[in-house]
Amino acid sequence: MFKAIVIIRKRPKILDPEGKAVEQGAKLLGFNNVRNTRIGKYVEFFVNTENKEDAEKEVYEYCNKLLANPIIEDFEYRLENVE
Amino acid sequence: MFKAIVIIRKRPKILDPEGKAVEQGAKLLGFNNVRNTRIGKYVEFFVNTENKEDAEKEVYEYCNKLLANPIIEDFEYRLENVE
Repeated sequence: MFKAIVIIRKRPKILDPEGKAVEQGAKLLGFNNVRNTRIGKYVEFFVNTENKEDAEKEVYEYCNKLLANPIIEDFEYRLENVE
Repeated sequence: MFKAIVIIRKRPKILDPEGKAVEQGAKLLGFNNVRNTRIGKYVEFFVNTENKEDAEKEVYEYCNKLLANPIIEDFEYRLENVE
């Protein structure tokens, strides 16, 4: 079994309205030094196979087809062996 | 200036309906080995100060008051010095 950790970020040229909104709230609360907030996803799951190559393939496809939108997002992942 | 990287996760006992929904989609697409998908946030921003202590404090408060919901989420962060 593997644990997969995936980070999904909007591509640099894609606007992030959610980040902008949170940052406006920050300014109202007096956080004056915060700049360029960008909000992505941090996804964790397990892959129930002992074969690392199979696991990598499944994680890649899962990210590419479901977790991320590859047109506007980039993703990276790592796998950890777990018992 | 510092770059802050924040990871926000739902606490272990909190249900994650978004993760469950994506995982159901995964099963329909034939990803049979994926288990226990949990979706959190990955946030990046800059803190415009040269004082690391001030930066830490502002990042902590920003997370605690705006980015995360401390009742159901845990957060962790790290700071990187940038030019």
